[in-house]
Amino acid sequence: MKLATYKDGSRDGQLVVVSRDLATAHYATGIAATLQQALDDWNFMAPQLQDLYVTLNQGKARHAFAFDTAMCMAPLPRAYQWADGSAYINHVELVRAARNSEVPGTFYTDPLMYQGGSDDFLGPNQDVVVPSEAYGIDFEAEIAVVTADVAMGATPEQALEGIRLVMLANDVSLRNLIPAELAKGFGFFQSKPATAFSPVAVTPDELGDAWQQGRLHLTLQSTWNGQKVGMCDAGPEMTFHFGQLIAHICKTRNVRAGSIVGSGTVSNKGTEVDGRKAWPKGYSCIAEKRAIETILDGKPSTEFMKFGDTIRIEMHGRDGASIFGAIDQTIAPLT
Amino acid sequence: MKLATYKDGSRDGQLVVVSRDLATAHYATGIAATLQQALDDWNFMAPQLQDLYVTLNQGKARHAFAFDTAMCMAPLPRAYQWADGSAYINHVELVRAARNSEVPGTFYTDPLMYQGGSDDFLGPNQDVVVPSEAYGIDFEAEIAVVTADVAMGATPEQALEGIRLVMLANDVSLRNLIPAELAKGFGFFQSKPATAFSPVAVTPDELGDAWQQGRLHLTLQSTWNGQKVGMCDAGPEMTFHFGQLIAHICKTRNVRAGSIVGSGTVSNKGTEVDGRKAWPKGYSCIAEKRAIETILDGKPSTEFMKFGDTIRIEMHGRDGASIFGAIDQTIAPLT
Repeated sequence: MKLATYKDGSRDGQLVVVSRDLATAHYATGIAATLQQALDDWNFMAPQLQDLYVTLNQGKARHAFAFDTAMCMAPLPRAYQWADGSAYINHVELVRAARNSEVPGTFYTDPLMYQGGSDDFLGPNQDVVVPSEAYGIDFEAEIAVVTADVAMGATPEQALEGIRLVMLANDVSLRNLIPAELAKGFGFFQSKPATAFSPVAVTPDELGDAWQQGRLHLTLQSTWNGQKVGMCDAGPEMTFHFGQLIAHICKTRNVRAGSIVGSGTVSNKGTEVDGRKAWPKGYSCIAEKRAIETILDGKPSTEFMKFGDTIRIEMHGRDGASIFGAIDQTIAPLT
Repeated sequence: MKLATYKDGSRDGQLVVVSRDLATAHYATGIAATLQQALDDWNFMAPQLQDLYVTLNQGKARHAFAFDTAMCMAPLPRAYQWADGSAYINHVELVRAARNSEVPGTFYTDPLMYQGGSDDFLGPNQDVVVPSEAYGIDFEAEIAVVTADVAMGATPEQALEGIRLVMLANDVSLRNLIPAELAKGFGFFQSKPATAFSPVAVTPDELGDAWQQGRLHLTLQSTWNGQKVGMCDAGPEMTFHFGQLIAHICKTRNVRAGSIVGSGTVSNKGTEVDGRKAWPKGYSCIAEKRAIETILDGKPSTEFMKFGDTIRIEMHGRDGASIFGAIDQTIAPLT
């Protein structure tokens, strides 16, 4: 099934069930007021939501209305955890190659993850507000999952069973703040402002064969200022699947229902075209484009985002239909 | 006023108002079910909670009962944000001196903060469950505040106005996981398991003159296996006050109601005793004790915590009464 959260003036919004084709929606009133409530008691709530979803898809839901992504908050407008991985090691390889730095061998066996802020997520059409263009504004197109309770010590296979929902994320990054921040040794903080999520979160069964063992084998599209810059395959090159990422968190703590876990920037290896290295699938963040330029030409030529720039992130199923709806945001100054 | 959260089998527990002397409590039924609910709508809820607090202190609350910290969850059993600072630079100086590393000059002007997991906090009497003693189990006695909404771009002075509650924290740390984790460059993750909080959270007015411009001028006691190891002054040596820590988060994002911000390990400078450097106020984490031993003797002699060890963290007012109740935990293996 497909779920979204409608604005209603409250902090957590109102849970709605969305039809498979994203055309209609129905309030989940009488089942759960918010998505977190449904996740807190999923085994009881999910079958009821599923029934409503079936009725809605049949066109028989009596109070259905046209689904409008402009009404959407993030599926979880705030969450108790947002832990983001860097699961596509090709992304790390590119960024490191551009600065002539090797990727440590352990990076292929031990996931990189950071803890993000989760108190103030952005809806899919909400502006990305940044105090200054000089911070080096970048998008990061990612896949994210929402978890059930997963106990400390869970294996990657057990953790896979704890994936409730899948969605898309724009993990906005402020590139020019990163070097000084990482040099302090405590990881990202000011360089990772509010993250945005797709209008709709879907259960893994909606993804059919494209969802395989914690990897989503479909193309993630990134469109920057109307130009398609990324058509990246999210599947085979995901070094660590979502079960491995969740199990990484579970090494020393419990993961509680409604935790969001991200894949990191979706990234594909380059290829050889006419004797020159090329990346025909494009990029899911500008930092990667600049790394490619540095590798090819010795220096980056693409600038980061400016106020007024737009970024659209979307994924289509094998039938060509949008699965999650689009993240479609404009960069705006703090006023 | 003083607030706590009683276990009731639910994820967020039940909000109770606690008397000033911590002797009695009263359910906040009819006002707010949970502390997060009260924080979400503080200006409306707080006066009602305050009225109940006054009645309770007068011994006139009709359904008051004896307050029992064993019934307490963390005041916020889960939160939308847990951002922990390292605001006592003396702690950083000691740890760095022990490994012959300088403290960068910027550390005195730009706070160190990390984002922690906030989906699964420990109550004040809940076991600290760790998979292995080999992880290097340590406590960290800290002060923490709970915030209101504070907007992106807020100044430290504006951020001070956004402090709703004060409490104590045990930011459990797994020291032997830290070096490899920080070497990966993304900051703490597995090395920071679930944090515990004091039974009671109090409004700043409860602290009287001891609360001055975002600093708490009282002694934080740490008792390890029944032995008082820390009597650290939390006030004057806090390099960055809580307004500065909150404003640090607000540089690039909004902080939303119910965010928890920590001070980092409370730490005091050493002094000269009989020609030898000494730290008569003790320590608020074992890592600091080991740093002191390394500085004095060339190597650490105190080991980290073992299964069965206990840690008690408490703070008394100038009248000698416990303000927040005690964090009192036992270290236990994962079973």
